[in-house]
Amino acid sequence: MNKQGVDKKACFFNTLRVLDSQAAPFFAAKRHRGWVRRTPAKRLRGRPRRALCFLLLSLSILSCAATEELKLNLMPFPAEVEQKDGKFRLTEAFTAAVKGPLPDRVSRAAARMLHRLSGRTGIFFSQGTVPSGGDWDSAGLGLIYEKPGRLKVGEDESYILKVAANRIIILGKTGTGILRGLETFLQLLSTDEAGYFFPAVLIKDRPRFTWRGLLIDAGRHFLPVEVIKRNLDGMGAVKMNVMHWHLSEDQGFRVECKSFPKLHKLGSDGFYYTHEQVKEVIAYAADRGIRVMPEFDIPGHSTSWLVGYPELAAAPGPYKIERGWGVKDPTFDPTRKATYKFFKKFFAEMSALFPDEYMHIGGDENNGKQWNANPKIQAFMKKNNIPGSHALQAYFNKKILKILQKYGKKMVGWDEIFQPGLPKDIVIQSWRGQKALREAARKGYFTMLSNGYYIDLCQPTDFHYLNDPIPADSPLTAHEKKYILGGEATMWGELISVETVDSRVWPRTAAIAERLWSPGSIKDVDDMYRRLEKISLQLEELGLQHIVNREMMLRRLTGGLDTGPLKVLVDVSEPLKIYNRHRQGVVYTQYSPLTRVVDAAVPDPKTVREFRRRVELFLRDKSDKKKEKCLRKQLVTWRDNHRELKKIIDSSPVLKEIEGLSGALSRAAAVGLEALDFIVSAEKKSGPAWIKVQKEILKKAALPRGHAELMIIPAIGKLVKAANR
Amino acid sequence: MNKQGVDKKACFFNTLRVLDSQAAPFFAAKRHRGWVRRTPAKRLRGRPRRALCFLLLSLSILSCAATEELKLNLMPFPAEVEQKDGKFRLTEAFTAAVKGPLPDRVSRAAARMLHRLSGRTGIFFSQGTVPSGGDWDSAGLGLIYEKPGRLKVGEDESYILKVAANRIIILGKTGTGILRGLETFLQLLSTDEAGYFFPAVLIKDRPRFTWRGLLIDAGRHFLPVEVIKRNLDGMGAVKMNVMHWHLSEDQGFRVECKSFPKLHKLGSDGFYYTHEQVKEVIAYAADRGIRVMPEFDIPGHSTSWLVGYPELAAAPGPYKIERGWGVKDPTFDPTRKATYKFFKKFFAEMSALFPDEYMHIGGDENNGKQWNANPKIQAFMKKNNIPGSHALQAYFNKKILKILQKYGKKMVGWDEIFQPGLPKDIVIQSWRGQKALREAARKGYFTMLSNGYYIDLCQPTDFHYLNDPIPADSPLTAHEKKYILGGEATMWGELISVETVDSRVWPRTAAIAERLWSPGSIKDVDDMYRRLEKISLQLEELGLQHIVNREMMLRRLTGGLDTGPLKVLVDVSEPLKIYNRHRQGVVYTQYSPLTRVVDAAVPDPKTVREFRRRVELFLRDKSDKKKEKCLRKQLVTWRDNHRELKKIIDSSPVLKEIEGLSGALSRAAAVGLEALDFIVSAEKKSGPAWIKVQKEILKKAALPRGHAELMIIPAIGKLVKAANR
Repeated sequence: MNKQGVDKKACFFNTLRVLDSQAAPFFAAKRHRGWVRRTPAKRLRGRPRRALCFLLLSLSILSCAATEELKLNLMPFPAEVEQKDGKFRLTEAFTAAVKGPLPDRVSRAAARMLHRLSGRTGIFFSQGTVPSGGDWDSAGLGLIYEKPGRLKVGEDESYILKVAANRIIILGKTGTGILRGLETFLQLLSTDEAGYFFPAVLIKDRPRFTWRGLLIDAGRHFLPVEVIKRNLDGMGAVKMNVMHWHLSEDQGFRVECKSFPKLHKLGSDGFYYTHEQVKEVIAYAADRGIRVMPEFDIPGHSTSWLVGYPELAAAPGPYKIERGWGVKDPTFDPTRKATYKFFKKFFAEMSALFPDEYMHIGGDENNGKQWNANPKIQAFMKKNNIPGSHALQAYFNKKILKILQKYGKKMVGWDEIFQPGLPKDIVIQSWRGQKALREAARKGYFTMLSNGYYIDLCQPTDFHYLNDPIPADSPLTAHEKKYILGGEATMWGELISVETVDSRVWPRTAAIAERLWSPGSIKDVDDMYRRLEKISLQLEELGLQHIVNREMMLRRLTGGLDTGPLKVLVDVSEPLKIYNRHRQGVVYTQYSPLTRVVDAAVPDPKTVREFRRRVELFLRDKSDKKKEKCLRKQLVTWRDNHRELKKIIDSSPVLKEIEGLSGALSRAAAVGLEALDFIVSAEKKSGPAWIKVQKEILKKAALPRGHAELMIIPAIGKLVKAANR
Repeated sequence: MNKQGVDKKACFFNTLRVLDSQAAPFFAAKRHRGWVRRTPAKRLRGRPRRALCFLLLSLSILSCAATEELKLNLMPFPAEVEQKDGKFRLTEAFTAAVKGPLPDRVSRAAARMLHRLSGRTGIFFSQGTVPSGGDWDSAGLGLIYEKPGRLKVGEDESYILKVAANRIIILGKTGTGILRGLETFLQLLSTDEAGYFFPAVLIKDRPRFTWRGLLIDAGRHFLPVEVIKRNLDGMGAVKMNVMHWHLSEDQGFRVECKSFPKLHKLGSDGFYYTHEQVKEVIAYAADRGIRVMPEFDIPGHSTSWLVGYPELAAAPGPYKIERGWGVKDPTFDPTRKATYKFFKKFFAEMSALFPDEYMHIGGDENNGKQWNANPKIQAFMKKNNIPGSHALQAYFNKKILKILQKYGKKMVGWDEIFQPGLPKDIVIQSWRGQKALREAARKGYFTMLSNGYYIDLCQPTDFHYLNDPIPADSPLTAHEKKYILGGEATMWGELISVETVDSRVWPRTAAIAERLWSPGSIKDVDDMYRRLEKISLQLEELGLQHIVNREMMLRRLTGGLDTGPLKVLVDVSEPLKIYNRHRQGVVYTQYSPLTRVVDAAVPDPKTVREFRRRVELFLRDKSDKKKEKCLRKQLVTWRDNHRELKKIIDSSPVLKEIEGLSGALSRAAAVGLEALDFIVSAEKKSGPAWIKVQKEILKKAALPRGHAELMIIPAIGKLVKAANR
């Protein structure tokens, strides 16, 4: 892992050498035809690639109506992109062929590609499957690779994608590289007046980090197999390669356990994955080049285990499945032999079920209360010179580590497991942040970053996007940096349901995927948002519900009435961020409805970003009538929306809680309109009294209502500030 | 089956007697409080119940803006409904309790009910599960039943639902009855200014037919488990009780077969249900009171079987999975012993896997070509005095029947299997229609109707709704009618995908469900459509994608541009009906994209129905300015839509094929506007030349384009006719 994880570049150029010789005839032919290298592309070849980002920067938001330019909508953006002249036309005659060892996985991926391409274009291809041994010479798309590829940390995922007017080739050292290249290929599809085409391009691509994960918490709210699968599809589309499956929590034990069947039978309310389903998910993930790493969170976060096996707890039972959220007391007793006997058998079963080389044992947020209150445990600690709960947990971890090693697994855990004396092949997942990450790396431990990627906290995409596991100013040495394997977005499950989970994961996670795949120099936020819009629509094709479910939820909320006015409000509202939803005087539990306006609202809505930008641009040039008109139109819509929405609220009691939010939007928009009048008027002056009143109105409008908040208040505040003269 | 199938009424009143005594204290208390029976309700008690339908008739379409009246939005409409005074208020304190034998299934259904109720209302109930032995006395909703219930033809599914201001009780003879009652209960939820409530009501309900099915064809296009499950949820919501799972076709063999693994390994492209998945689906269906009847279509429609086992075919192989549609030649050889040896082992496995007492063997559309061309088969027929293909198939069926009987199964097949000498416990499924149905019933064979319920043919809801297995004027005797068990909607799979299947099944199937459950006298089409709108939204709550997927498809079709103009067009378009999509010069195969405008269009769109009705109402009273304005507004929207849509078409090649359709809508709307001018003008006269030209324009506008057609042409034609003076 070490070598592969570090020496990616050398590794990639090896690939190139090997494949270039294999594909020589094709490339030679292309070269003879004399591709013209465009000047902008030339400029883009060296690093840093910021110039590229500026070129790609969307200008569409400068006017009300978006104007389209020919740009590459790739995400994650590849390491090297060289645009060429020419277009490969997509027609009914298009076929694909594959050359490589054990081609089943690549063949299946190619068949899915055909299906997606046909679905997007409506073209009736004659080909529906891409078996090995198909007609290579006539194939419009050739897939060629050297090794099947393994699902391992450090795997070579590089590929070269070459589009010429008469042929497309994707070259990879491994089949995994081909999977990554196919996703780039699908993102390249473009249109012009003559139809669909792929622009001529030479892409050389490889990941910056080898661990690009998404944690899915199925413990708190169970997520059926199809939810996992469609998210795996989404991950594959943005080249992520680890699904970290959080499978046990105080609120649920989610895997069938044949050794200890009371785990799933008594700890899950019947909502668990069978062995066969687990295998199905693992195979599905593998087909998309994604490892599945299970997490069984111990010794805390374990109430659901103890329902069936109370004798293993550090305090007498009985236990029942926890329904509330937060850090709970129930914990395994780390001093009893029976506990390790249990885990030995348990991990024997789970190590066989989950083939990944890593096993995540959680290890977070054990409050130590049960341990402190148990005299036997206290006596044990005294006898064994264990000074406190942390040390006792380290003792526990070492025992568990031995069990895992016995079954050939490497241990992964949260920051808390990081204790002296652990072997160097474990991986620390950092929820604490850069400091903890660096500390581990300096001591020669592998780490990955999750702090800053907590997508459950409903923070904006650019916050996550700019969160780099190895920022440009990192104080780490080149050697130390090798220990930072990548990162994981974490979809914690307190406030998600089958209906909403996709809208919490996507599209923001695509930006995290880019952070972990693309060169660190690619970090233009505007361009990221421009591409994200496109990618978000393509994610829908895979069955992800992140856009449609909002529409369904709005229909339910209005009871079948016009959803328009509610949508206007939801488009400028966000769920309360961080942990603020839990501080509104309502206690959320596993049974709480996640179907309210706050759940239909999404983090970082486009309307808000666009308004913010429009205000900025207007304030730079206040005489621009078009920009003013644009702003005014938007503000009038918001001001007048409450009148319409009020009627709907009156017939739909579930909306009562957002009546205040709707009124606040109306009032805030009115403030904005008045400010606009002052700004553009040669005569009218606002005066300090007016300013004071408006600020007060905006302050009140910014308050949370129905666990949501209006996100356009700061931008309106800027208008008020500008009106101050 | 016979007795139960027939004597439902007696059976139901037995239930009443038993439960009345059990629930005596509750009912006694209610009676003492002196419920007031409303006059309209009184009038509605006797049959026919047409009066009820008239009362419930929606008047909303009389004006542009819908006006809401308090009506019961129940579907299927119950057999007896008596409205009372009073409201049961839904609050956070609401709880449910269950009393009955083996309450697991009912408990789970009650927990799902709580989840749905909480989801719809946003109310935070403290209760999340409804275990047996909960607090009965304080429960707002009590569920009480006598027997667990079995998944059998003739099962008692009756229930009584009594809502009083302080308590709700659902009584059933069986747990299945409780499941049915819970769905009615959820449909009863109403709102007023004070919040959510259930209106006081006494409902006594039971099904008219015991077999209310939906055939899902997973053979032609594979449908993953989650698609099956969400459709089972939909079926449960409208009280359907048979999922007829069409599991083998020329294009795919869809079940893991342990006895003959080449069936699924070579015959499915990897798309099949494992045994565990089949069991999962059966358990899921059982939880919703739904039987799962598998269909293995033999001896024809069997190409996919013969890929792995060509030696069983009536002509030499090799075979490959069929990709085209239609009636194909490959057929089992019915003259060889090996064939029956194969089926003996095959049905041994499948009979154990599928617990339902019925096994469907298809038996349809064997063209006999392979049999006629095979000299050995011809010799066998001669030797055994078998006069032709039909007789040979009868011979085959009898042999298969014996095998099924050995495994305790009753045989079901399509019309074609109906041959003299079959035992009387088989069931004939009629795709041919009433005549075949009656013929079988007269001869004492059980039958069920599918003719008229072919939902794949994209016909309007009312066509299916008014298709009664036993119409009021049926010439059958009371005794003969007993043999008609019910019917099945058939979702054949040539032109459906995971994305579109729900929109082809729902909401139309809810109307078929009502036909099969509710008294035959309930057949008011307008009222059906009014309730269908509401039920359709509730079906969304269950995860059905019939509404949202259109929105997603429109987004993909426009490549992320505004979907509004395309929606205007799609709202008045329908897929070509019956088998006309196959007659447009394009050959559909298993690989064809089902993502085009025609696939996003749905049968029987609401906009068309409303326009048709508005034209009718306007033509009844041409001086009504409001109605005229309303029509004019709609026509102007359509006329001007093409200008906007054209821009989107120009940037999205997949839309090119509907440019003509969009232009035709514009021209047809212009015709309508001109006609409107003539109609309301005192001076202007149209004249025969104008009429002729307009009729020609409309005729051309009605032509199919992009495999879709405009549905508003006849209504515009009426305007033209009315302008003729």
